[in-house]
Amino acid sequence: MAEPRIAVALVHHPVLNRLGETSTTAITSMDVHDFARSCTFYDVAPVFLVHPADGMHAFVDEMRGYWQEGEGGGRNPGRGRSLASVQLVHTLDEAVAAMDGGSVWFTSSSPPERETTDVEALGEMPGRHLIVFGTGWGLDVKSLQKPTGWLSPIEGTGMVRHLSVRAALAIYLDRLRR
Amino acid sequence: MAEPRIAVALVHHPVLNRLGETSTTAITSMDVHDFARSCTFYDVAPVFLVHPADGMHAFVDEMRGYWQEGEGGGRNPGRGRSLASVQLVHTLDEAVAAMDGGSVWFTSSSPPERETTDVEALGEMPGRHLIVFGTGWGLDVKSLQKPTGWLSPIEGTGMVRHLSVRAALAIYLDRLRR
Repeated sequence: MAEPRIAVALVHHPVLNRLGETSTTAITSMDVHDFARSCTFYDVAPVFLVHPADGMHAFVDEMRGYWQEGEGGGRNPGRGRSLASVQLVHTLDEAVAAMDGGSVWFTSSSPPERETTDVEALGEMPGRHLIVFGTGWGLDVKSLQKPTGWLSPIEGTGMVRHLSVRAALAIYLDRLRR
Repeated sequence: MAEPRIAVALVHHPVLNRLGETSTTAITSMDVHDFARSCTFYDVAPVFLVHPADGMHAFVDEMRGYWQEGEGGGRNPGRGRSLASVQLVHTLDEAVAAMDGGSVWFTSSSPPERETTDVEALGEMPGRHLIVFGTGWGLDVKSLQKPTGWLSPIEGTGMVRHLSVRAALAIYLDRLRR
């Protein structure tokens, strides 16, 4: 099977907290499952989980073991198959390096640059693409390498301006694949 | 403000368990937040949470109080605003009755009927529409009134055939609003 052209990273550090400070969030099992399932559904891989703490890597490994080899695997084999796409890295640079020269796209509900790229356009561009999502209050860009560009934000029609990162991922992948 | 034309229901009973038996799932705070946020983002309301147990209603009321009037409200006012769209009901019939003659659309990754309706078409149809999602292994249709119809399932390209209900909701609403 050809290597998927699109990969995703979910960053837990460096991200912003609600005060705009550099911080670190915990990996949650819900994010891991939803990211793994949505990406596997749309044939997107790997899903890089970016976290500096080995303890958090161990948590994901244990969770993966349960669904791939343990009790959960018998009960719900789809979860184990999805989790095969998950790769743990300590920094976003490691994920970028694994893309081997591919493009890197940051996401935000309010990108800091006026020029943004519609996610649909990635389907027409050559090479591999890494789409990067931040947890917490978003990517702490001052602590990260400059990306290839920013994806156009998902525009809502209602009075609340932020989707969950799980919802944003699902919508971007659906737009990309249609 | 005009009443939104689209409403959503998340059913916790009657749904199927993995053995295909009629069962009941618990309401999770993650589902409540993600459903409330995605719906408020796209101006969809109400979000009916269908659960027969008063204890589960009390759990959601407490959660809502925390984000609307309690400590959480000060920290993250968007969550409280989103939760205003949530309505607790004991049965799906109660949600349907509140729609006052609107259409009722069921969702499934494998609908039992060959004729399905693309979600985009709802935008062109008059009246109000209720989109119904099942938790667990999906809606237990033999225990429910027949809907107006079934929405076309979201088709993936990968080897895993099920999205999380949170991802499915986000994708349907995005397709509907574009």
